[in-house]
Amino acid sequence: MDPVRATYRIDVPPGEGRARAEALALEQTAELPRAAVGSESARAFLGGVESVEPAPDGAVRATIAYPAAATAADPAQLLNVVFGNAALLDDVTLVGLDVGASSAATLGGPRHGIDGLRAAAGVEARPLTCAALKPMGDPVEALAQRCEALARAGIDVIKDDHGLADFPGSPLADRLDACAAALDRAAEATGRRALYVPNLIGSPRTLARGLERVVEGGAGAVLVAPLLAGLPAFRELARESPVPVLAHPAWASPRVAPETLLGTLFRLFGADAVVFPHAGGRFPFDEATCRRLADELRRPVEGIRPALPVPAGGMSLSRVAELVGFYGSDTMLLVGGTLYVDGAGLEERARTFVRRVADAASAGTGRPT
Amino acid sequence: MDPVRATYRIDVPPGEGRARAEALALEQTAELPRAAVGSESARAFLGGVESVEPAPDGAVRATIAYPAAATAADPAQLLNVVFGNAALLDDVTLVGLDVGASSAATLGGPRHGIDGLRAAAGVEARPLTCAALKPMGDPVEALAQRCEALARAGIDVIKDDHGLADFPGSPLADRLDACAAALDRAAEATGRRALYVPNLIGSPRTLARGLERVVEGGAGAVLVAPLLAGLPAFRELARESPVPVLAHPAWASPRVAPETLLGTLFRLFGADAVVFPHAGGRFPFDEATCRRLADELRRPVEGIRPALPVPAGGMSLSRVAELVGFYGSDTMLLVGGTLYVDGAGLEERARTFVRRVADAASAGTGRPT
Repeated sequence: MDPVRATYRIDVPPGEGRARAEALALEQTAELPRAAVGSESARAFLGGVESVEPAPDGAVRATIAYPAAATAADPAQLLNVVFGNAALLDDVTLVGLDVGASSAATLGGPRHGIDGLRAAAGVEARPLTCAALKPMGDPVEALAQRCEALARAGIDVIKDDHGLADFPGSPLADRLDACAAALDRAAEATGRRALYVPNLIGSPRTLARGLERVVEGGAGAVLVAPLLAGLPAFRELARESPVPVLAHPAWASPRVAPETLLGTLFRLFGADAVVFPHAGGRFPFDEATCRRLADELRRPVEGIRPALPVPAGGMSLSRVAELVGFYGSDTMLLVGGTLYVDGAGLEERARTFVRRVADAASAGTGRPT
Repeated sequence: MDPVRATYRIDVPPGEGRARAEALALEQTAELPRAAVGSESARAFLGGVESVEPAPDGAVRATIAYPAAATAADPAQLLNVVFGNAALLDDVTLVGLDVGASSAATLGGPRHGIDGLRAAAGVEARPLTCAALKPMGDPVEALAQRCEALARAGIDVIKDDHGLADFPGSPLADRLDACAAALDRAAEATGRRALYVPNLIGSPRTLARGLERVVEGGAGAVLVAPLLAGLPAFRELARESPVPVLAHPAWASPRVAPETLLGTLFRLFGADAVVFPHAGGRFPFDEATCRRLADELRRPVEGIRPALPVPAGGMSLSRVAELVGFYGSDTMLLVGGTLYVDGAGLEERARTFVRRVADAASAGTGRPT
């Protein structure tokens, strides 16, 4: 079986890099000094340092190969081996991960992928448009009105804000019904039905019940925050979900590079699409990070479907052409609060968003992906 | 219902603190500018800034009160509200959390607590001793031999390394049986049975099956890493576990202060004992952090049992008296690799550990707790 290769940035002078990498390889496996690992079978589980290189900024980049046997073909144990104790070290960041073919097959990746999400949304080739229902605390009827307005404007995918839980005053089941009716009304006017994506949040059993309920209620996709659920719990849900699962980045750790956490890991653990902040919005992601993240979601991996990048996080309508140019057509642009600047103009601004994406796509600013 | 109060460190000059805190209160709830929150019901869900103070080092400490309604009485949504999107901001750290009586009652805290763990280990008042079975990859028989040696030496609690998964070559079920037999043999010699604590790792269903199996097999406690499982999944397990649950800190995020993550949150989510690195070992925790962490685990909270601090992380036998003095008697000292320096001397070094803890406890170096 292929080893699991993890690359770390270690913030030490290059002269200390080799020793620190060797210590890390032991920390993540035997948790003992090498001399104290007596048996051959235990030595076969040890991580091995494959390379140690100076990074451009003076830190060190080290790659460690872990025997696949150490991961026990278990998703949680894989996380544990590549970064369990390492997370407690303040000078170590996980910056790259290649789990190899056997672990990739075990994890499984997206069940639906980009094609599945496109099919659910009924959009073949161009970039998709996405808007969010908000804010938390609003009555179901108000959210459903907004859902109808966004659908009338031609938005492809209307997702719950990730803060919309199953509130006693505006329960998930009611929201689902009201939004389904809203989409029906809009579809009569437009001839096309938007995809409503309810948010699921909770403990594993709550998530499982929620998924069953919203799929019965006609939801064509769901939103889940994998790091709130726990990545192994997220995977359990995503791999069994009959509808595509969008992943939200809430509760991300900076000790894992965004492209590795939200890109490599979210995809391997089953996200069909991943929401993340694009550069220049409310969150400190730069363009190079966003490029690597989108590449990790879409690059060809044997046996693993690609996942759709969903750049978001404070995008304005004036940036639509730029974003389509940056991400190409296999992407979904998510504009959130920008559409809400005043409540009355929601539908009109959503129309502008939809038109600009169509214009950018037909103008060919979308690079081939 | 009491609000949920979260305190953040924001790394901005004090003059920008108020505006950033106000923006954070909105980011975590409506995800909209305040002016765009139109309805009274949505405004009732908004976070409110209670205080903004300069921190000694030039940053800012801000406390935000979130209405309990925003958490929907859901453990995952509580995490989302206090730190979901905030985790993506590189200058914000969650440094304190007071969830209030109603959310504390919802979360429930430890099912067994310090008293339950003491009862399981058969240790009434003194500090407990704990050693780890390692390394991963060793055959079950070798691990069981070590288990017997540690039990003969009088160690109270013998836990799996958190890297011991359910390996095909050394399955959890076999390890459980072999260690139970080892403890029986040791008990014949010593007249007292040590507590063996198997490690559970995996997706929610794997954890649930594992718990059932090890409890049937006679395990008196289990070890779980809440951040690998996901805190909501951990809670589901811990609140239903018939035996105490030890929590391991693997995969911790530095964006949440250790005392808040491993102290406040682990306890609220059901950990009966929490393993964490003590100052001066292999991990960069300082004494002040460890003090606050232990205080968070043990301080009186209405309706929530206290949890046992388990300092670890590269402790040497020469530090036993110091550690007993630092943590007092309601603690469990975990010495891991130090006992393994050479395999032949494991039992003898474990005896030294046990004797030193007994000496320190009877010499009264344990401060009252």
